Amino acid sequence: MQSNSYQPQQSGQSEKKNRARMLISCPDRPGIVAAVSHFLYEHGANIVQSDQYTMDPEGGMFFIRFEFDLADLDKELPVLQEDFARVADRFDMKWHTFRASRKKRLAIFVSKEDHCLLELLWQWQAGDLDAEIAMVVSNHDDMRALVESFGIPYHHIPVTPDTKAEVEKKHLEIVSDKADLIVLARYMQIIPPKFIEQYPNRIINIHHSFLPAFVGGKPYAQAYKRGVKIIGATAHYVTEELDGGPIIEQDVQRVSHRDNVEDLKRIGRTIERVVLARAVKWHIEDRVLVHQNKTVVFN
Amino acid sequence: MQSNSYQPQQSGQSEKKNRARMLISCPDRPGIVAAVSHFLYEHGANIVQSDQYTMDPEGGMFFIRFEFDLADLDKELPVLQEDFARVADRFDMKWHTFRASRKKRLAIFVSKEDHCLLELLWQWQAGDLDAEIAMVVSNHDDMRALVESFGIPYHHIPVTPDTKAEVEKKHLEIVSDKADLIVLARYMQIIPPKFIEQYPNRIINIHHSFLPAFVGGKPYAQAYKRGVKIIGATAHYVTEELDGGPIIEQDVQRVSHRDNVEDLKRIGRTIERVVLARAVKWHIEDRVLVHQNKTVVFN
Amino acid sequence: MQSNSYQPQQSGQSEKKNRARMLISCPDRPGIVAAVSHFLYEHGANIVQSDQYTMDPEGGMFFIRFEFDLADLDKELPVLQEDFARVADRFDMKWHTFRASRKKRLAIFVSKEDHCLLELLWQWQAGDLDAEIAMVVSNHDDMRALVESFGIPYHHIPVTPDTKAEVEKKHLEIVSDKADLIVLARYMQIIPPKFIEQYPNRIINIHHSFLPAFVGGKPYAQAYKRGVKIIGATAHYVTEELDGGPIIEQDVQRVSHRDNVEDLKRIGRTIERVVLARAVKWHIEDRVLVHQNKTVVFN
Amino acid sequence: MQSNSYQPQQSGQSEKKNRARMLISCPDRPGIVAAVSHFLYEHGANIVQSDQYTMDPEGGMFFIRFEFDLADLDKELPVLQEDFARVADRFDMKWHTFRASRKKRLAIFVSKEDHCLLELLWQWQAGDLDAEIAMVVSNHDDMRALVESFGIPYHHIPVTPDTKAEVEKKHLEIVSDKADLIVLARYMQIIPPKFIEQYPNRIINIHHSFLPAFVGGKPYAQAYKRGVKIIGATAHYVTEELDGGPIIEQDVQRVSHRDNVEDLKRIGRTIERVVLARAVKWHIEDRVLVHQNKTVVFN
Repeated sequence: MQSNSYQPQQSGQSEKKNRARMLISCPDRPGIVAAVSHFLYEHGANIVQSDQYTMDPEGGMFFIRFEFDLADLDKELPVLQEDFARVADRFDMKWHTFRASRKKRLAIFVSKEDHCLLELLWQWQAGDLDAEIAMVVSNHDDMRALVESFGIPYHHIPVTPDTKAEVEKKHLEIVSDKADLIVLARYMQIIPPKFIEQYPNRIINIHHSFLPAFVGGKPYAQAYKRGVKIIGATAHYVTEELDGGPIIEQDVQRVSHRDNVEDLKRIGRTIERVVLARAVKWHIEDRVLVHQNKTVVFN
Repeated sequence: MQSNSYQPQQSGQSEKKNRARMLISCPDRPGIVAAVSHFLYEHGANIVQSDQYTMDPEGGMFFIRFEFDLADLDKELPVLQEDFARVADRFDMKWHTFRASRKKRLAIFVSKEDHCLLELLWQWQAGDLDAEIAMVVSNHDDMRALVESFGIPYHHIPVTPDTKAEVEKKHLEIVSDKADLIVLARYMQIIPPKFIEQYPNRIINIHHSFLPAFVGGKPYAQAYKRGVKIIGATAHYVTEELDGGPIIEQDVQRVSHRDNVEDLKRIGRTIERVVLARAVKWHIEDRVLVHQNKTVVFN
Repeated sequence: MQSNSYQPQQSGQSEKKNRARMLISCPDRPGIVAAVSHFLYEHGANIVQSDQYTMDPEGGMFFIRFEFDLADLDKELPVLQEDFARVADRFDMKWHTFRASRKKRLAIFVSKEDHCLLELLWQWQAGDLDAEIAMVVSNHDDMRALVESFGIPYHHIPVTPDTKAEVEKKHLEIVSDKADLIVLARYMQIIPPKFIEQYPNRIINIHHSFLPAFVGGKPYAQAYKRGVKIIGATAHYVTEELDGGPIIEQDVQRVSHRDNVEDLKRIGRTIERVVLARAVKWHIEDRVLVHQNKTVVFN
Repeated sequence: MQSNSYQPQQSGQSEKKNRARMLISCPDRPGIVAAVSHFLYEHGANIVQSDQYTMDPEGGMFFIRFEFDLADLDKELPVLQEDFARVADRFDMKWHTFRASRKKRLAIFVSKEDHCLLELLWQWQAGDLDAEIAMVVSNHDDMRALVESFGIPYHHIPVTPDTKAEVEKKHLEIVSDKADLIVLARYMQIIPPKFIEQYPNRIINIHHSFLPAFVGGKPYAQAYKRGVKIIGATAHYVTEELDGGPIIEQDVQRVSHRDNVEDLKRIGRTIERVVLARAVKWHIEDRVLVHQNKTVVFN
């Protein structure tokens, strides 16, 4: 983890050069799979993975994710995208394409707790998180040395009740054009609506409870008081409703009457770390679709 | 499961004839373990199991459970109990003793769903639930044949908005002196305060969610709407606060966006069954202590 | 669960009348998804579910499962099947189609332990197991009354060391043309090779350990002796290698030093039940593909 | 994680100054709890935690763990120990006492994989691992900078087929009198018998499979080949039998056909980390007793 010798491991970059991903959601209708797969085939794309889900009861929404290889992707993808507009129109599709080789740029926000940040750094270093960590932003200066030892820029932006508007402005300036995904790795501050608007379904928060139980502050103290036998953590996209956004991933761990609040925090840290890391991984691999405050996760 | 040939399996009854259990809670003080274990030793009791827990932060409460063997238990236990009063006074103890060979009598309340009842019947039949099933009470008549085929009395007491007071009276008459524990095995009716008073910490309910999430009705529909990635069930003692009593046991299962409300119900049934059966088992083995709306479970 | 009033719940049969499923495995090549989905579209089939998996490292095998609706299925499916032969030839496919409305017929084999059988009967009764239970076969007569109370034929075929050849012959006669799937629900006898040959990947066994640990007899005693902290159960297709066939599903439960062999058996029974029921459910919904002693499960 | 500013968090050291732990195992007999708790009470010790377990079927072994507070522990513990010898003799006890404030000294052995080491360092840094990390020993030099940045000595001792005897000697010299516990944090070398003899039940290894499945090398490749649906990791004390020593802790994670060997390794790393950290934590808190190649874990 020393700064000078560090290089994140590169796994299979060359084979990914021509790999793309496509996410589609639209009202369900006959012929969608046929139309899209035929379109891809005609454009020389080889489908290496496809996942489909039709949500029956709520108006018949259709969701699909393709991974495909396309020779000379850099040149051919724009052509494919332009041609696809006609298919998309026909089926009233919302759709996105992504190049697997274009790493998403993360801005990680932290406060005083380092465990979620450390997990992301370690997974990134181990080559398990195929992203670029563009910056770490914090309302404290504590983790500067750690972060800079990885060669990652560190922005210390203190937050006080009086400076909230100014902080928001600074945050937006810093991340603008530099981050594709905001990760709140135990950043214990409310994110203002204007910031959320700029990153719709692109801000992931880790909440240290099994949502919707124990919304808000001090969830471990709440869990202890209620006497639950299992605790959990929840990674979700941030919306204006506090701890109310679309859930990406959750996990839990058994506890007992012997565990006091400090024990719950300690046990919880491990859950938080793995849940956040999984959610970030799935997002950067373009596996998550959002529909009506819920997620479809093709993992 | 046929009625005529059925006998629940007897496991190790003879060895349990002289087995007793003791549950104690009191303010923490030096010398409690020594005093009680010395007392038991002097009275000829051999401790075969002891579990102790001191709750530190909240005023130093002390909890202990002993299992011990005592020759000629039927005659000697009353003597031991009388003598123990002095020890108990000294430490300001709340305490109970139980004979392992005296099976607790269950009254199981059900409505239309049979899975929790069936699980209890199976476990009882397999010899895994060391209790007597004194009766099944239901607001419907659907499960009469099933229950009576086990030789268990079935009471059909319909509930309508107008008859609630009358129903409560009937319930109290039926279970009075005949049941040590009330098990609400998906009995979808509110239990009135007077009934709860008669069975403090002796009514176990299974709630079909991971409490405190999704209190009240239709928890699976609520869970589906919120888009949780894990569902659960909770067994708790019934208090006047709806779904708010001390939690005995919880368990969970992973679900995905592919699971609709019916899938959640199906997956949930298996969780409900095992969680309720575990809680009942622990209660009838005298493993559960209640303190300030939380449980200490020595399992 | 009484015999006279019993009818398994029917869920959505009408909507399934025109539902079919298709399982395909073949060497990976560009254009498979396009070819098949285009074919289905041209034949008027509407894809409601598709799952695809490409096994990269081992020679590039391609697996796909479709669910589709086709008007007037009874008449049109044979046509579609005949036409599909050309597509299949082109890609060197192994493929099968199934009508969702045609329930698979199960022959359940049991010995003395009833918990796995009871679980299957209960799930069937609850409408969660969309199959026909054609018969129960046992080397003991103990469960006759139970099984016949459901209106299910019960065949008692005793097994002794001298009668093995004869038993095999009887078994084959009984199930021949009457069963699509053999379920060994804790049937504690070796299945002879000739029988296995008749039901390739159509005999599901539940083994009471987390395979490949504790192959063979008395796995709970083995687990206790080894001092494992987690026990499990494994549902697998039966092959000639004892407990060595393709694994369909596994699950586990935590245990501790306090649990003796009887406790492990008791805890294990619940795991066995749910693991076997899941595997059977996935098989009868045509979600399992076998390739080189491993399964692809589209669930 | 920077070297200069680092200090592991101190949690409740002052309150632990007079805290001691006692582990006892002996043949079961009446009066043990009474004798020991009476003894402790008479010596002024206040029991704050006691856990007891009697192993029934195998010759009636009795195990107990006490935590107690004793004023002026440094002076009084030797007195108590001397006096206890008579009690111990009477019951034929194996027993140990430990001061909670005396941190155990760990020697952590690693090879090329850093995840288990990092987890231990993080938990230590967070104050969750109440130990002293005396040194890190490796057959490679890769992690020197990382380890030394924590102020921990790093010993690089290369291993070649020709130097095994010499390596063993060096290892014994290095750890002698400096380490109470050896932690093999993915140290991929066989530990020779003489070394094991020096540290009976004081060498903890993490094996990257759910033992006893997949003993030996390349367990993830073995798991992939067998097609298991759940993978695991096992922390155990090292004995002369490869991967055959007493199991302290295990945990598992669900996988699917989509996961190749690299995925299993990635998923497995997280399991390995938490399982090893739990086992080390329990050992240094004196919660583990070994009896006949199995552990009793009072957690």
